[in-house]
Amino acid sequence: MNSSPKVPIPTLERLATYLRYLIDLEASQVETISSTDVEKQTGINAAQFRKDLSYFGEFGKPGVGYNVIELQTRIARILKIDQMQPIIVIGAGNLGSALIGYPGLREHKFHIAAAFDSDPGKVGKPQGDLVIQDEARLRQINAEVGARIAIICVPASAAQGVADAAILAGVRVILNFAPIILKVPERVVVRNVSFLQELAVLSYHLSSDAHK
Amino acid sequence: MNSSPKVPIPTLERLATYLRYLIDLEASQVETISSTDVEKQTGINAAQFRKDLSYFGEFGKPGVGYNVIELQTRIARILKIDQMQPIIVIGAGNLGSALIGYPGLREHKFHIAAAFDSDPGKVGKPQGDLVIQDEARLRQINAEVGARIAIICVPASAAQGVADAAILAGVRVILNFAPIILKVPERVVVRNVSFLQELAVLSYHLSSDAHK
Repeated sequence: MNSSPKVPIPTLERLATYLRYLIDLEASQVETISSTDVEKQTGINAAQFRKDLSYFGEFGKPGVGYNVIELQTRIARILKIDQMQPIIVIGAGNLGSALIGYPGLREHKFHIAAAFDSDPGKVGKPQGDLVIQDEARLRQINAEVGARIAIICVPASAAQGVADAAILAGVRVILNFAPIILKVPERVVVRNVSFLQELAVLSYHLSSDAHK
Repeated sequence: MNSSPKVPIPTLERLATYLRYLIDLEASQVETISSTDVEKQTGINAAQFRKDLSYFGEFGKPGVGYNVIELQTRIARILKIDQMQPIIVIGAGNLGSALIGYPGLREHKFHIAAAFDSDPGKVGKPQGDLVIQDEARLRQINAEVGARIAIICVPASAAQGVADAAILAGVRVILNFAPIILKVPERVVVRNVSFLQELAVLSYHLSSDAHK
C-alpha cells in the first residue's frame, strides 16, 4: 500500500487530523474506534473518513471498528512520518521561535535540526535546544543534518533568496510563511501558510448572507 | 453581487491570493492584467481564476483585461475586508507576538485591537502598539473594541476555555492555532492552522512515488 501517487491534498490534510486524534486516543488508552467516533471528535463525517482511508487499502473490521494503534501506525507510514524527520527553520524571529518551541513536533516525529538567521545579533544565540546559525552557512550545515524540509519564516523580501539557498542545500519541500509566492523548480513542493489568507476567508464568513 | 452564499472555501482562499497579488501590482503602478498574468504570478491557472471570479458576476473586458484597482476593490468587498476589521489575539507567546507584529495585516484592513494573556508576568507589558490585557477581562474589553474575529494562540489545554470566553464576548469567527479541535456553536466559524498538518502533508511529498 506504499504506492499511492494520486491522493488529493485535502485527504492528506485530513489524515494528519486523524493522526493527531489517534495520538490523543492512544494517550487516553482507547483501543478501538468507529468512524462515527471519528466524526464526533474531528467534525469530519464518517463517510469521508472511510473514503479517505480507502485510497490506502483496507482498514478496520466490520462490527469491531478500527484498532487505534494499528490505524495510527498505518497513517503515520502513509504520511512518511513513521521515522524522525529533520527540519530546518530559516528566520528566527518571533514566528521562527514559536515553531522551534512548538510542542507536539517531536510527537509527530519532526525534529528541528537547525535554525538560521541573517541577523548577526541573533547568530550564535541559543534558542531552545539549538544555537541560531548564520544563514550563509545553510548549505554547509544542511550537508550535516540532511533536512529535506525547510520552514521559511523570513520577511517577504528575503524569502526567495533563502528558498533558493535551501533548495541548493538539498531541501525538497518548503513550508512558507512569507507572504510571497516562491518560484521553485518543479521537483520542489511548497505549501504556503498565509495568516492574511486565513483571515480573509474568515472575514467573508462574517457577512450574514454567507451563512446558511 | 453581494449575496453569494455557496462559494467554495478554496475559491475564497484563492481570492485572498489574488488580492495580495493585486495589492503588490498597485504598488508597482500596473494598471491592467490578463488572466495569463495572474497564472504566471500566482501559479493558479487562468481558467481557474476566471471561474473563481464568475461566482461574483462579471469582471474584466475582453481584449483589455482586468483593471487592477477595480478588481482589487471588488475582491476586497467580496471578502468583507473593504473596511478596517478589528481582531483580538488571545495568547501572547511567541506566536501571538509574531501575529501582533505581522506586517501586511493593516494593508489588508485587519487591525489587532487587543491582545490577551493569562500570565500575570505578561499582562500589562507593551507589545507593539498594544499593552497585553488580562484574559479575565476579555468580555469587558471586547465590549469596547467590538472584535468579531479572534486568533487563538494559547496551548491546547487552554484553547477551548478561551474560545468559549471569546464567543461569549461576541466573537463569530476564530482562527485557531492550538492543536485541538474546538467545539463551538453552529453559528461560529473556525479555521484551524496546524503546523503539524502542514508538515505531514509536505512529508508525504518526500516519498518519491508521490511524484509524477
